[in-house]
Amino acid sequence: MNAAVSGQVKALTFDVFGTVVDWRGSLIRDGEELSRRTGVKTDWGAFADAWRGEYAPSMKPIREGTRPWVNLDVLHHENLLTTTKRLGVEGLSESDLRWLNLAWHRLDPWPDAPEGLARLRRKYVVVTLSNGNIALTVDLARHGKLPFDTVLGAEVAKQYKPHPQAYLTTVSLLQLEPSQVMMVAAHNSDLRGASKAGLRTAYVIRPTQYGPGQKSDLMPEGDWDVVASDFLDLAEKLRA
Amino acid sequence: MNAAVSGQVKALTFDVFGTVVDWRGSLIRDGEELSRRTGVKTDWGAFADAWRGEYAPSMKPIREGTRPWVNLDVLHHENLLTTTKRLGVEGLSESDLRWLNLAWHRLDPWPDAPEGLARLRRKYVVVTLSNGNIALTVDLARHGKLPFDTVLGAEVAKQYKPHPQAYLTTVSLLQLEPSQVMMVAAHNSDLRGASKAGLRTAYVIRPTQYGPGQKSDLMPEGDWDVVASDFLDLAEKLRA
Repeated sequence: MNAAVSGQVKALTFDVFGTVVDWRGSLIRDGEELSRRTGVKTDWGAFADAWRGEYAPSMKPIREGTRPWVNLDVLHHENLLTTTKRLGVEGLSESDLRWLNLAWHRLDPWPDAPEGLARLRRKYVVVTLSNGNIALTVDLARHGKLPFDTVLGAEVAKQYKPHPQAYLTTVSLLQLEPSQVMMVAAHNSDLRGASKAGLRTAYVIRPTQYGPGQKSDLMPEGDWDVVASDFLDLAEKLRA
Repeated sequence: MNAAVSGQVKALTFDVFGTVVDWRGSLIRDGEELSRRTGVKTDWGAFADAWRGEYAPSMKPIREGTRPWVNLDVLHHENLLTTTKRLGVEGLSESDLRWLNLAWHRLDPWPDAPEGLARLRRKYVVVTLSNGNIALTVDLARHGKLPFDTVLGAEVAKQYKPHPQAYLTTVSLLQLEPSQVMMVAAHNSDLRGASKAGLRTAYVIRPTQYGPGQKSDLMPEGDWDVVASDFLDLAEKLRA
């Protein structure tokens, strides 16, 4: 990245699921705990993939304005019911399902995330810009000891990424111009949305975020301002 | 406070100006720096009092619905122009005034605040519920190394305290019931607003927040759940 861009950026906004935290590994861990406790068995890797598979389609009607805003805890719960039915997982009580839905509040960070964020925070305001709701993201940050300056994102905009409003509301609440904000994500689609809204972009490769057989998001698919292998490498490249 | 209340509370929401930070002392410090730099002189203690004196009246039309939402940086700037005119302070450039307005982003914490918050955070979610806007509060938290879990308050509600909506929007974004949230403030009026909205209340005495001759907010004026001399005492009383 050239020095002019680097000097202009004041805040880094972070995608969370897959970029900061390992959602798949953490869901499998909590699913296995639930199996031990209840005796209800399933392939939790396949379950996590199917549950996450409902994520994008469930936000679509909200982005398109055909469904009023509901936050991600609500969508996750609807998608959980769809997934248990589709995969024939039976015997979980309502309270088991509520506990499992809150697994999204207990996702573990990637090992480099806490230290990388602490380094980046010395130079930049570091903020979440996730589709996760505020309560969920606060729980994740506390769980993983992630030193974010604050939690913003979809819920304050009542709009999901990659809709431009999701990015621009966070930018505006920080009282910055889009060009002063760099979106950090492990998903090319997220960076495409951020870039369209005028933000700078940093791509962090998370080669196992979709599991051992990951086929997409293994390399940058756009002319992103920075490409990094993890948050420590990002700090290095941003001289933080 | 009885143990049942203590066990039910999940989050502490903090008033900021006067409760967490010493606005008056910090404004005087920045004013004096401006005098040294520009040669423009005034009694900065009187200036700070007059400027802060415009605060409550300036929010009133917004609370009453006769003026659309604008955030506190905007009100502070309008109030600054009123104050310089009223006190006959002349010779400050537009850029001096902008710098002075941002003094509200550089207020120093009371000495017990960082450690007190860190202790309270081990047991509770700790969140700002200030009339200050998000960018202002993020700057303050970074400046004072204040370990808040996130910044909420008036701007996410587009409504100023003590309007109930200002409290209830933060409670709702935390996905809690009002009775699970305790408002921490050095102002009886703020706690009256919080209590009316159903929140628990903690009064922290800040006997010099209005300067050496302080006459109000020197003691609790309501049946608040906790009364503490500072944040360390609050942590002690909440067993955090």
